[in-house]
Formats: sequence, structure tokens, C-alpha cells
Amino acid sequence: MVQFVGANTGTWKVRELKTVAGKPLTAVSHLQVLENNSLVTTSGLWTLRGFSSNIRYATKAEKENLLAMQQGLGRPEATCAALIPIRKSDAWWNLAQDERRAIFEEQSHHTTIGMQYLPAIARKLYHCRDIGEPFDFLTWFEDAPSHANAFEDLVGRLRETAEWKYVEREIDIRLMQI
Amino acid sequence: MVQFVGANTGTWKVRELKTVAGKPLTAVSHLQVLENNSLVTTSGLWTLRGFSSNIRYATKAEKENLLAMQQGLGRPEATCAALIPIRKSDAWWNLAQDERRAIFEEQSHHTTIGMQYLPAIARKLYHCRDIGEPFDFLTWFEDAPSHANAFEDLVGRLRETAEWKYVEREIDIRLMQI
Repeated sequence: MVQFVGANTGTWKVRELKTVAGKPLTAVSHLQVLENNSLVTTSGLWTLRGFSSNIRYATKAEKENLLAMQQGLGRPEATCAALIPIRKSDAWWNLAQDERRAIFEEQSHHTTIGMQYLPAIARKLYHCRDIGEPFDFLTWFEDAPSHANAFEDLVGRLRETAEWKYVEREIDIRLMQI
Repeated sequence: MVQFVGANTGTWKVRELKTVAGKPLTAVSHLQVLENNSLVTTSGLWTLRGFSSNIRYATKAEKENLLAMQQGLGRPEATCAALIPIRKSDAWWNLAQDERRAIFEEQSHHTTIGMQYLPAIARKLYHCRDIGEPFDFLTWFEDAPSHANAFEDLVGRLRETAEWKYVEREIDIRLMQI
């Protein structure tokens, strides 16, 4: 379990907090990331919680490609980060597994697109729909400042996909390590 | 969110609590089912929590068949119930989505078998792996006493499948409405 606390202090400085779709999130100057059920010691303006889970869409071949190419979080050069909370519509969640898979990959090439930015852009997905949170997913990205353009390209391409028609709320929070 | 509280009082009487695999669960005489985050007012010997979620394996065709055939919980004649908490191994959870789907349905015919007992045996699945619970799933079944043999047949067939080789803990709790 991880908690992202939006506050006036924290180890990540907010460079920009932009509402892409739906209801905005209160502006904050900093973000604190608390892992492993640490107690929240920061009096944040908001807290978003999520958990990592098993793979939901990737096939064996896609999973093996991802594992071979991706790098972990916390690389010294990766001083830029982004937290992108999204919520999908009921229409998405009412689809069966094969329908969601087809939109996610065969139509939208979600994993294929993400893989084109590896290992530069590291990514970790947290789920939160099932625990009564306001978002369904919290995706955390880390990269070096030199990959800023690549990151814009990645999120821009994903937002043009068929999958993104089901995104009804999205906040894009860009961060810089202090 | 639902909570199943094993205790000395409750609206369901435990007829039998059997350890099928792995570590046993403390014997209790009754079970209380608390929905929608009700406060636990029973001082239970154990509490198992879970949430219902989106479909994880069923295709559109399978989902439509299920919806057409299944009946809801709480039918007056359905005075028998079973709660079957299971935990699967890391080997299962480390598989990709297509590998788990193939074992679940193409090899084990999980949905197909379950469908053969509809509408007699109603079923609801709760997930709990992602919230730090001791089990991964809590499945709740309800049927009329006249379908007792059909229910034995159903659980017996599932336990013989390839999918069940990944089940490392399973408790079978049979209940009678008070």
C-alpha cells in the first residue's frame, strides 16, 4: 500500500498540477510518498491511497518484454516524476475482460506504446478503485530531466487512444525531487 | 465491502467448518455477515473482509450467459449457504493474464462448470488479496436444502481442476440460516 500526500512540505516539489478531465484536485506545493502503511505524519490537504497488484491485461510475451526492458524506481538521475491519478467510467468497468483487453491493447496499444519509452521512463501502477478511493489508478512515473520531451510524447499518445475515451477524471501532477 | 464475522452468535449457524488445504481457521458456531462497512458489533473470533470488483476473466459471451441465468442472493428458499475462503500460490499470481485465463477457463472450465448449477446455486465473489487479508477470495454460495447434492458435486468438480493446483489454502464453511 502506498499513500501520496499532497501538502505544504514533502520530498517532491510540485512543478505543475493540471486537471486534464473531470473534477480538479486542490492545488498543493509538495508531495510526500509514504510506503508500506507508514503512518501519515504530514497534515496533507489530500491523501490518495493505492496498492500494487497482479498483472491485469499483459500477456506472457508482453510481460517478459516489459521485465527485460524496464528499470526500477529511485535511479539517481531520475529527479523528475509525475503522478497521474485517473478514474474510468462505469461503461469501462461494465465491460467483460476480453472487451477491456481489446480496447487496452489491440485498439490502443497501451503496453506497446509504454514499452517504446523504456528504459528511460520508469513506471509503477497502483490500483485504488476497490478501496473506495476517488480514483481508479495512480500511476507514478520517474525519468531524468533530459527525457522531458519523451514523457510529453508518451502521455499525449495515450490520451489520443480509444482507451482514453473511458477516462472521466484525470489529474496530471509533475514533480521535481528536492 | 463485506465482513464475515466468525463468532458465537450470528444469523447463520455453522453446520461444518472444514480445512480443505493449508492452515485451519478457528472453529466458530455462528457467522455474521456485515455489508456496506457496517461497524462490527459482534465480538468475533475472526473477521474476513472482501470487496466485490469488476470481472477478471469472463468474456462478453460468458458474462451474458451468466447474467441471463443467475439469480440473486437472499431467495426465501435458499436457507443453506457456504463461505469458501481460498488463497492461491505466488506461482498463480506471477502468471500473466493470458496464462491465468487459459488455466481458469480453457483448461479448468471454471465458468462453464459454475453455469451448469445455475440458477439453483447463487454465488457472489469477494476479493481480498490486495487489502492484506489472509485469503485471496471469499466466495459465498446460497441454495435450497434440496440442492445439497448438486453443491457437493460443484465444489468437488472444481477441486479436481488444473486451477485448483494453485490453491494453497482453502476452508469450507457450511451454514444454515437461523
